[in-house]
Amino acid sequence: MATLFEQHRALLEDAVAAARSRKYWAAFPEMPSGKVYGETAKADGEAAYEAYLGATFELPGHPGEGTVGAEVSPYGGALNVSYPAASADSLIAAAKAALPSWTAAGPEARVGICLEILKRLNARSFEIATAVMKTTGQGFPMAFQAGGPHAQDRGLEAVAYAWEAMAYTPATASWSKPAGKGTTIDMEKRWRIVPRGLGLVIGCNTFPTWNSYPGLFASLATGNPVIVKPHPAAILPLAITVKVIREVVAEQGLDPNVAVLASENPGGELAKAFIGHPDVALIDYTGSSTFGSWIRANAGAAQVYSEEAGVNPVVIAGTDNFRGMCANLAFSVSLYSGQMCTAPQALYVPRDGIDTDDGHKSFEEVAEGIAKSTDKLLSDPGRAAAVCGAIAADATMARIEECRSLGRVVRDSGPIEGMAGARTATPLLLAIDAASSDAHSEERFGPIAFVVAVDSPADGLARAIAGVKNKGAITAAVYATDASFLDHAEDAFAEVGANLSCNLVGDIYVNQSTAFSDYHATGANPAANACFTDLAFVANRFRVAAVRRLAA
Amino acid sequence: MATLFEQHRALLEDAVAAARSRKYWAAFPEMPSGKVYGETAKADGEAAYEAYLGATFELPGHPGEGTVGAEVSPYGGALNVSYPAASADSLIAAAKAALPSWTAAGPEARVGICLEILKRLNARSFEIATAVMKTTGQGFPMAFQAGGPHAQDRGLEAVAYAWEAMAYTPATASWSKPAGKGTTIDMEKRWRIVPRGLGLVIGCNTFPTWNSYPGLFASLATGNPVIVKPHPAAILPLAITVKVIREVVAEQGLDPNVAVLASENPGGELAKAFIGHPDVALIDYTGSSTFGSWIRANAGAAQVYSEEAGVNPVVIAGTDNFRGMCANLAFSVSLYSGQMCTAPQALYVPRDGIDTDDGHKSFEEVAEGIAKSTDKLLSDPGRAAAVCGAIAADATMARIEECRSLGRVVRDSGPIEGMAGARTATPLLLAIDAASSDAHSEERFGPIAFVVAVDSPADGLARAIAGVKNKGAITAAVYATDASFLDHAEDAFAEVGANLSCNLVGDIYVNQSTAFSDYHATGANPAANACFTDLAFVANRFRVAAVRRLAA
Repeated sequence: MATLFEQHRALLEDAVAAARSRKYWAAFPEMPSGKVYGETAKADGEAAYEAYLGATFELPGHPGEGTVGAEVSPYGGALNVSYPAASADSLIAAAKAALPSWTAAGPEARVGICLEILKRLNARSFEIATAVMKTTGQGFPMAFQAGGPHAQDRGLEAVAYAWEAMAYTPATASWSKPAGKGTTIDMEKRWRIVPRGLGLVIGCNTFPTWNSYPGLFASLATGNPVIVKPHPAAILPLAITVKVIREVVAEQGLDPNVAVLASENPGGELAKAFIGHPDVALIDYTGSSTFGSWIRANAGAAQVYSEEAGVNPVVIAGTDNFRGMCANLAFSVSLYSGQMCTAPQALYVPRDGIDTDDGHKSFEEVAEGIAKSTDKLLSDPGRAAAVCGAIAADATMARIEECRSLGRVVRDSGPIEGMAGARTATPLLLAIDAASSDAHSEERFGPIAFVVAVDSPADGLARAIAGVKNKGAITAAVYATDASFLDHAEDAFAEVGANLSCNLVGDIYVNQSTAFSDYHATGANPAANACFTDLAFVANRFRVAAVRRLAA
Repeated sequence: MATLFEQHRALLEDAVAAARSRKYWAAFPEMPSGKVYGETAKADGEAAYEAYLGATFELPGHPGEGTVGAEVSPYGGALNVSYPAASADSLIAAAKAALPSWTAAGPEARVGICLEILKRLNARSFEIATAVMKTTGQGFPMAFQAGGPHAQDRGLEAVAYAWEAMAYTPATASWSKPAGKGTTIDMEKRWRIVPRGLGLVIGCNTFPTWNSYPGLFASLATGNPVIVKPHPAAILPLAITVKVIREVVAEQGLDPNVAVLASENPGGELAKAFIGHPDVALIDYTGSSTFGSWIRANAGAAQVYSEEAGVNPVVIAGTDNFRGMCANLAFSVSLYSGQMCTAPQALYVPRDGIDTDDGHKSFEEVAEGIAKSTDKLLSDPGRAAAVCGAIAADATMARIEECRSLGRVVRDSGPIEGMAGARTATPLLLAIDAASSDAHSEERFGPIAFVVAVDSPADGLARAIAGVKNKGAITAAVYATDASFLDHAEDAFAEVGANLSCNLVGDIYVNQSTAFSDYHATGANPAANACFTDLAFVANRFRVAAVRRLAA
């Protein structure tokens, strides 16, 4: 029987080729279509989700005494799912016990297992999408794409990179050194991949799978058992993930505790118990800068890969497609109610306006253009619900209230019609002047964006760059018709490590980051110290140990 | 005119191929021969060295006010070389000013420049070897090989890895995503390499070039200007290196302050001023564990690559070549008077002896065998001087004194005949019993080794492994005839990340680590958190920034 590695070798090779070319490629279809996933897939996925509610989530062989879990959906209603309650010590002990056999399995076996896991996760995309939607508040289309196939592609990308990095060192070499007079010294050398220890993956509330899969699969593939610590409000998507991992690993005769679930109720501080623990060697974190800096300061010798907060800027200098620009930005600020780490927050517009294909537009007209496009986009309640979804956290609702007074309201936030019981809020657009306010400079997580009056395009760019340096940014965008201004913006944003999108119109948005082509974050500014996925994201997750013997 | 990159492309390609195959390969000839380096090379190199003495070391355009420098040779006599005295702030400012143009030059130009630098350093191998010999106390053959071509090969290896890691990301890609109904969304994407910031390379007294070149060239190639901070006792070899770097960089029309020299007198604490500085993003350190842990604790967001202290074990379970084993170990403990980070310190021998081709040997006989081989090796004063060299630091002489009482002296340390004025000491061999002493468990830097009586080969292995876990080790060796014991040792040392040599006899030693084939350290135990050179050593020294535009 072919090993999993052999079965999935073509998939791996395609993924490696895609990562190297960075052209468009996806392993897992993004359309939530019955034709692709099976005519009953949607109903089956929803039924699977429903079956979890009010029940104990079964993870055979998982450590724990009693249960925890108190997820409440942003769409309304408690999930009442009970997960194993396990102490940090028992989780660490279980994962540590699984380490030797996971190491000994070797890179090919581990990569084969990871690929099989990803395929099975893909088959359960509707189930996972429903769990993501209900725990995060995402609209279904996004929950399916970002929570399912796009997350799986990101996981596959990490496996491909991990494989490339591990395979860089040959398993063996015959070494023959000339020693004078026609003689040689001959040695046989062997190398093996040694894991760093245990991995810890700390998930976030908004993208439990998409932001966790890269670190999770990178650590697993390189030999490190992983403690998966979901956000207490979004446990289910990662619990399903851990369940699938454990099933595949156990089928291969290995200890399923290579993936364990660290569940807790809201307000818990379980994650802290792992930080600085000598067995925890790798930490993948997505979340607030406050906890992120605490982790970085207290991680000891562990390698930390973190994505924290940022303020994503848009510099508006001019456009030859004013309507297209406004529509594009309206979608970007509306999508998942601005709860994406890639959503723009600070839109810099010259105080005396910009030139467009539709004539000169004043600052007011630009702000108004974006506001009206947003109104139009969200005028149909069904579409508004699908685009905006619900608000993940109460704190975000409170923040919208607080921010209303920070500027002149160009477009007010409000609830979405027809979503009774759900926590909803459309984008709040505020106009401010950079000469008198820096309200836009702090991260305001949620559907809050600022149209910021500046002296000139150059002033807007300079302020945007300073913002990225100080507060970080995952994405940046520029609208300009002047080629030299675009070139200058490209240089400036590269220097501070913000990935830049230029003049986007139509169905492609600054928020979107595609596996195998777009790197997500750079690691070069305060928004993140790492990137999905480059060699730096994987190469430090393992070591190489050698043995050499004189040749017989 | 061909660029430096084009000129040296074949060298780069050979280096990359060698790193990937890990078969024997060297770019730079290790024989200090006039046939290779030119008939006058030796005399020219010595004359160049002499010309530095008592003079000001010229580094045109280098920051500094006044001079500093107080090197005294372990062979006797002050060098009286004066180097620019520059504050940490002025060095950082100068290197920072050089960053933008060094970044903008791009990977190809930087790699081409690094290769040209290495070729020029190679042509000056006799000059550098003399400087290394006189500042470190190495014997000339080692000073030439380790300080010259082997260090250059390690530098080249780092450049090759850096190139591979940077070139992994394409410069451009055309991205075309199917958007339904036969349409596509088309984007042009571009990526560029962004440096992390400034590199800091902290050199050691004993191997100023060999241990510094990997980090130095890895940081330079990836776009980070480097502050080179030599050990105050061994400035000259790195000053020459910095001089050559600056010459080549200036010839290419770039700011030579991409490499600056941080010189100080013994007892200074200049290095500390750079640690935790926000502009210092990469730190390469070789030295004591005490300062190493201080650096790791205070480096802030900087990535630290450090090689610190360890206790390298040898497990002696049996041999089919007793004389060969004793001779091999005698050379390993004698070479550069045990002042190599790869030298063995703890030799575990079963209390009731071992089986050999020469019959059963008692614990006493094994210890005596190594002692007698050492005596024989060093019986000729000329050979003793060439093998042992001189002792770099006074503290090492004091340590030998202190250690004499830690066990039964099997072979005493003593001065080397005919080296008047030099600080010399042959190996001190002590016998102890693990049941009553753990004197071997602390690092005892210098010509000090312990033959440690243990219960059995398995006990010796277990103690060796525990030692690596607790104190670290760069190398490990085992002598055994039992194949299953060897396999077990291989597994055990791999798990703790010590590179293992088995049954070495003849002209290959556990101390030796060959560029392009042997990784130096693993990063997986306390002796080092990084390795010369793997992808992890280079991949985190730069970031990738992207720009994407809709295709026209």
